[in-house]
Amino acid sequence: MERLKKQMEFIIEVDKLKDIIRQTNLTNGERKENDAEHSWHLALMAVFLSEYAKEPVDVLQVIKMVLIHDLVEIDAGDTYLYDEAGNGTKAAREQKAAERIFNILPGDQAEELFQLWQEFEDRKTPESKFANTLDRIQPVLLNDATEGRAWREHDVCIDQIMSKNEYTSQGSDVLWAYIQEVFEKNIENGNIKRSL
Amino acid sequence: MERLKKQMEFIIEVDKLKDIIRQTNLTNGERKENDAEHSWHLALMAVFLSEYAKEPVDVLQVIKMVLIHDLVEIDAGDTYLYDEAGNGTKAAREQKAAERIFNILPGDQAEELFQLWQEFEDRKTPESKFANTLDRIQPVLLNDATEGRAWREHDVCIDQIMSKNEYTSQGSDVLWAYIQEVFEKNIENGNIKRSL
Repeated sequence: MERLKKQMEFIIEVDKLKDIIRQTNLTNGERKENDAEHSWHLALMAVFLSEYAKEPVDVLQVIKMVLIHDLVEIDAGDTYLYDEAGNGTKAAREQKAAERIFNILPGDQAEELFQLWQEFEDRKTPESKFANTLDRIQPVLLNDATEGRAWREHDVCIDQIMSKNEYTSQGSDVLWAYIQEVFEKNIENGNIKRSL
Repeated sequence: MERLKKQMEFIIEVDKLKDIIRQTNLTNGERKENDAEHSWHLALMAVFLSEYAKEPVDVLQVIKMVLIHDLVEIDAGDTYLYDEAGNGTKAAREQKAAERIFNILPGDQAEELFQLWQEFEDRKTPESKFANTLDRIQPVLLNDATEGRAWREHDVCIDQIMSKNEYTSQGSDVLWAYIQEVFEKNIENGNIKRSL
């Protein structure tokens, strides 16, 4: 059972995603979220929010993408959205990580995983646009629930936020409208700066 | 948008699953796993291991079940498999939790969630049998990767393990055979006791 052995090795390897820490705080404010929890949260959002996708989506495909989209961070680490230097080298670091981690799987499944990851990164299909929208709005919801904690910690202003959200509306008009209201509220109460 | 508001309230509420701690240690042995990470891990296993299901399964249905199967523990807490007293009151505590948490969602989605959860608990469909198999084997894989840490902490013997695994084989002969070998290896090296 060489095939099963490789699959089990992969299942054990990806346990490391539980130790990749993001910049977002949990809603109770007690610690920062890790990538595995974040991926679970996105998958659950895909189940209950996919009626708001701009185009009809294959929910299974959306869920698969959000479950695997951060696996490369096991080697490449989490790069904070507003870390300009880190974002300059991110693509190369993540490509190298994908080659090591995905190739633990048997060939056909490694190939499927590369395709899924590339689809998510390319944001061309309805499914990947919606998956990327979920990935962007989930931290906004958590930040809002913690009185803008991560925004305040990093002294973020609305222009920076909007520049990082140029694709967010592509997956869902309804969710984008909701999130814009959240931004507005957090500008009003000072959690997000109006200008630098 | 009363509907969207309820859905977003649910998305925020379930963030609490990230604080429900299980008895299983992560593979690096540094801390115990929480329910959100565990659910993510099962969903990923469903993606890459469903070829081993005893009967053909709808992978989306399996994934949905594993994503939501522990939500009731937000109120009811995690009940360790070998906690006999806790297991006596588990069903009633979880039913009450389901009523509070699931009903945050709009009526149609609350109903879908009750059905999914009940399907998982009943273990009658091919999907729920396979989902339950994944739920049982994932902690075994993590225990094996940490030299049987949770088994040793709780002084567990193989008879106890087998009595809790009476349904594990129902979802997959292949995965059950693999896990039996893992048990055997851990009896040999003393991580699991041969008898009480």
